[in-house]
Amino acid sequence: MSLNSFFSSFLPKEEKLLPKYKKMASRIVVGADLFTELVSTTEHDRQIELYTKIKAIETECDNIIVDIFETINDSFVTPFDREDMHQLCGDMDDVMDYINDSAKRLILYHPREIPNKAMHMAEIILEGAKAMEVACGELKTMNKQPTIALEQCAKLHDLEHEGDDVYDNFVKELFETENDPKELIKIKEIMQCMEEATDRANHVGKTLRTIIVKYA
Amino acid sequence: MSLNSFFSSFLPKEEKLLPKYKKMASRIVVGADLFTELVSTTEHDRQIELYTKIKAIETECDNIIVDIFETINDSFVTPFDREDMHQLCGDMDDVMDYINDSAKRLILYHPREIPNKAMHMAEIILEGAKAMEVACGELKTMNKQPTIALEQCAKLHDLEHEGDDVYDNFVKELFETENDPKELIKIKEIMQCMEEATDRANHVGKTLRTIIVKYA
Amino acid sequence: MSLNSFFSSFLPKEEKLLPKYKKMASRIVVGADLFTELVSTTEHDRQIELYTKIKAIETECDNIIVDIFETINDSFVTPFDREDMHQLCGDMDDVMDYINDSAKRLILYHPREIPNKAMHMAEIILEGAKAMEVACGELKTMNKQPTIALEQCAKLHDLEHEGDDVYDNFVKELFETENDPKELIKIKEIMQCMEEATDRANHVGKTLRTIIVKYA
Repeated sequence: MSLNSFFSSFLPKEEKLLPKYKKMASRIVVGADLFTELVSTTEHDRQIELYTKIKAIETECDNIIVDIFETINDSFVTPFDREDMHQLCGDMDDVMDYINDSAKRLILYHPREIPNKAMHMAEIILEGAKAMEVACGELKTMNKQPTIALEQCAKLHDLEHEGDDVYDNFVKELFETENDPKELIKIKEIMQCMEEATDRANHVGKTLRTIIVKYA
Repeated sequence: MSLNSFFSSFLPKEEKLLPKYKKMASRIVVGADLFTELVSTTEHDRQIELYTKIKAIETECDNIIVDIFETINDSFVTPFDREDMHQLCGDMDDVMDYINDSAKRLILYHPREIPNKAMHMAEIILEGAKAMEVACGELKTMNKQPTIALEQCAKLHDLEHEGDDVYDNFVKELFETENDPKELIKIKEIMQCMEEATDRANHVGKTLRTIIVKYA
Repeated sequence: MSLNSFFSSFLPKEEKLLPKYKKMASRIVVGADLFTELVSTTEHDRQIELYTKIKAIETECDNIIVDIFETINDSFVTPFDREDMHQLCGDMDDVMDYINDSAKRLILYHPREIPNKAMHMAEIILEGAKAMEVACGELKTMNKQPTIALEQCAKLHDLEHEGDDVYDNFVKELFETENDPKELIKIKEIMQCMEEATDRANHVGKTLRTIIVKYA
């Protein structure tokens, strides 16, 4: 054990824990950004390359979550309720899982074409990831100064509704225009998976709001 | 602050909290009732009108749930464990969400025809909503006199099984008789969504039973 | 009350509770084994016979879970946190539910043929059930000697990844080769349901790991 790590074990727990949330959120932003690139790429080899990178970030987030859980378990005191801390990173992990799943399905199903609305959805996911990142930067101070964090929660809520509308209109149109049942099934599932990502991002906002209310 | 609301802040917490559950359940009964009307209507404009009303009730339930969560957070003591109180209204909200989702899909997908069994399913949902309403009227006294509440739990359990059977037989038949894959996908998803509503209503029953056992 | 049951009420709680988990896991092994038989059978009457047996085991597990919940509620002290104890049997019950659901869908949808990869998936589920059974035999001692339990957690994790890969490759191929949309929908849903069972088995492993970390 280096001297540095010896001393760091005396640091208040929030100094160890909260930056891990920020780090996780930052990785999800990178993942969401790669995903927008994947959705706008038509070249299959490049798509596979991008998916491989997204998959690596998803694995990284899984490792961060294990690290967060262990830190929480090792702590006598946590910045907020353990349950809420678990929930918060679990929700963020779900967002990354759905980004990864959407990417995987795009690769595996290899639909004839990626609909325009998929790009709109990918941008909503990216905006949500950025809101999560900003909010995670506020974790330490949001009980006293909740304005910025609450703004992100409102944004996540609005983005979910936007995602819902995009998806609903998309599926309505898909049933009207797509006559190849296989393509319909592929595309519908991929878009549904993306919509789920926006839904989980809103969960992150809800959990944040719960924490803010409790510790106000 | 009116004198009335000033005094009401001294009222025992259950006098404030439990009626909100009852109110939520009553709104879901109205929503479920509108849904049976929607399912039995063939005129598309009228369907849209009914869906708009259902959507408004779903939003109302979302607001009631926010109110319940805030009241729980503001309370030093709650009638039962906070976790169970959260669970109970979360479960009820899920029922309303699935009713709303089923209605939305009916409007968006606009299937060629609504199968007879959808009406059966809608009636099961309505009966479940009524059982939830009766049970929520018992919340204050069910720890001492659980008979009526337990009867509703049993009813919710039976309704879920009935819903399961209706759905299973329906899908079996659908695969045998529906040769238009788009219609098959539409109708299957709408019915699945309704079946999910009966499933969540049974969750409400399970949560109630847990509460009754704990506080007997 | 027999003398035996009178005395048994004084036994330490873990002596009553933990064997119920073992029993549940053992029943799931039997269920998973019957399911492999169902998947490898082409004769429909025999399939129905096997499904009936699987359904009976699912009901049995539901009863064991009610029994476990009541025992937990009646106990002043539990071997580990109540929440973790609930989670653990809830996760196991989910595995059995998905085995049962997969079996039910095989019977109801009656696909033209059962793909070879379904047998691979059924074997993964069976191996997972066996790992759960071994792990449940370690519940009493795993806080001191976690090696065997942790090995099962690792196995459940690996099996989920194997299940994921089998499913992903299967669906990719299915979209490429199956041109009857109804058959595609049937088979995809059945395989997805099996994949979900391996997913839930990994949840069991995760919960076990959480318990081991907490009580180490």
